[in-house]
Amino acid sequence: MQPLSVTLGDRSYPIHIGVGLLDDAQRYAPYVASRSVAVVTNKIVASLYLERVQRALEQAGARVVPVLIEDGERAKAWGTLDRVIDALLAARCGRDSLILALGGGVVGDLAGFAAAVFQRGIGFIQVPTTLLAQVDSSVGGKTAINHVRGKNMVGAFHQPLAVIADVATLDTLPDRELRAGIAEVIKHGFVLDPQFVDWLEANIGKLLARDRTALSHAVRRSCELKAQVVAADERETGLRAILNFGHTFGHAIEAGLGYGEWLHGEAVAAGMVMAAELSVRTGTLRREDADRVAALIAHAGLPVRGPKLPIEQYLELMQVDKKVSGGRLRFILLEGLGRATLRGDLDPRLVRESIAAAVQ
Amino acid sequence: MQPLSVTLGDRSYPIHIGVGLLDDAQRYAPYVASRSVAVVTNKIVASLYLERVQRALEQAGARVVPVLIEDGERAKAWGTLDRVIDALLAARCGRDSLILALGGGVVGDLAGFAAAVFQRGIGFIQVPTTLLAQVDSSVGGKTAINHVRGKNMVGAFHQPLAVIADVATLDTLPDRELRAGIAEVIKHGFVLDPQFVDWLEANIGKLLARDRTALSHAVRRSCELKAQVVAADERETGLRAILNFGHTFGHAIEAGLGYGEWLHGEAVAAGMVMAAELSVRTGTLRREDADRVAALIAHAGLPVRGPKLPIEQYLELMQVDKKVSGGRLRFILLEGLGRATLRGDLDPRLVRESIAAAVQ
Repeated sequence: MQPLSVTLGDRSYPIHIGVGLLDDAQRYAPYVASRSVAVVTNKIVASLYLERVQRALEQAGARVVPVLIEDGERAKAWGTLDRVIDALLAARCGRDSLILALGGGVVGDLAGFAAAVFQRGIGFIQVPTTLLAQVDSSVGGKTAINHVRGKNMVGAFHQPLAVIADVATLDTLPDRELRAGIAEVIKHGFVLDPQFVDWLEANIGKLLARDRTALSHAVRRSCELKAQVVAADERETGLRAILNFGHTFGHAIEAGLGYGEWLHGEAVAAGMVMAAELSVRTGTLRREDADRVAALIAHAGLPVRGPKLPIEQYLELMQVDKKVSGGRLRFILLEGLGRATLRGDLDPRLVRESIAAAVQ
Repeated sequence: MQPLSVTLGDRSYPIHIGVGLLDDAQRYAPYVASRSVAVVTNKIVASLYLERVQRALEQAGARVVPVLIEDGERAKAWGTLDRVIDALLAARCGRDSLILALGGGVVGDLAGFAAAVFQRGIGFIQVPTTLLAQVDSSVGGKTAINHVRGKNMVGAFHQPLAVIADVATLDTLPDRELRAGIAEVIKHGFVLDPQFVDWLEANIGKLLARDRTALSHAVRRSCELKAQVVAADERETGLRAILNFGHTFGHAIEAGLGYGEWLHGEAVAAGMVMAAELSVRTGTLRREDADRVAALIAHAGLPVRGPKLPIEQYLELMQVDKKVSGGRLRFILLEGLGRATLRGDLDPRLVRESIAAAVQ
């Protein structure tokens, strides 16, 4: 199948989606021939796929330097970043070397950021192995690590040279992570595509049952929608912010519980319910549409309520959101299913009420 | 006087050079009005200039957040970077805030890199207060921190919004730092402008005596030359590498002695003598021109010989240079005074001999 394309001038790149791409040396060859390629991954993913990827890269003419990082959100930290940089320097990787991110969103965010800053920037390839990474984080060039004061507070826009999404890797994904990925698929529907929302409502069972045709369609449509937004607003000066639907609340949930307690997609799921609630209270969304938001999230087996943290803590944690402008919180609201808007002039009382209405 | 301009499309910016610019609120106003501005500086520079800069920024409508970092090359490290990020987050700086780098090359490199990665990139202004920073490091968007395995190994290309160089700040510069800055001025002549070399040979005494007219001319001509190169090759895919004349050897000197033992300009000075020696031995430069290189460096009170480290250590340290490509060292050679070239196919024996000929 033809790859999708993220259209960004001389930084345009293809997204390959299919079954069995992981082993395909030809897929890697245009980028890696006679280069050093540092494959950044974690122990779990390495045990499943590293050998196969390494063999394909070597067939394509690369010198492979495996770099293992710890598992989980806590890997998005200065210490891990320094260890990746150190491993590249120890292996004599230069400015012409590449980083290949093999894993989920954490690996992609961290490895992508390492590529952004190693010797002021080298190329990298995303090989996402989780649904969340395939439908969202591997596309669009956002890379980052976390700071104790907030998620993704340190990072860069650094586009990959290619995204290679092998949907066969989803076979090994734990159920909980599959559902967390579905949260971002659903998000793309809510903010951009009403027909896709209809499709998701009809096919959520197939996705949960890992039907490969359904999963391939979901990955492809999500990437298409995201690629269009990124092409229009790479550095999130406007439109791209709508992809953060549910994320302002979601980041507060993740930070409030400690990163990794809830998966990112789980926090975003509850965050989307809060944002839909806020949309209703602000008058932009009908109650029955907000009910459809909550119902689809519930059918996906995702949380429709946030953890029971004090409302003040939610508000405090939301203040460090990157969408804060001139000290004012800004929110992505729905104006209907498949239509989103960025709003910065909201009554703080409505924000409190919306959180209160959707905590456990 | 009209500002110079670094021409880079929508990332173009002015370089203001003059006396008394530090206090000029109008100079800052276009960038800082009703924004938070984190002024990153060190204790010594803060005691001299922070109050004046803060007053001017506040007159221009900014909210000022001073951020003090430690002095010296050791500040270019993960820990300092984290503290700057932390200070911005603690002061509720968002994506619309700015960083202003007030100080020398270390402050500019670190603060610029913090701006490059804070919330995936915010704007920054360079207010260089050393000669080295005014003639070189504040222009061109190279930002970085050091890694134990090599200098400037982690960084980004991130262009400032403006450079404001107040040559009156050079009055307070220690002699040793003045000379270190002159090393980079001289470098610009050697690689790009034979007439400027002649001028420097005739005026080196005036520069050392801090004649303001001579200093202003040296800053202006250096910035002009550098701006042309940066405009032609922002990300150093080719031409810009010539600005690293003397730096491959120089970085080895700095790393070998421990960063900060020799000033960057001192290491580059000895490195230029080694590179000129290598140019002669490779056959691209006449011996009498290499003698002029060494003589001008000596007249500037800069070292013409590297520290007595084992030759093998020099070679080892040079291997982590960012110009290494496909495992091969590359060097900037002179083809005459004012004309440089990048060469990657040198006989390693000549490299050893050139180092040996110019160590103490």
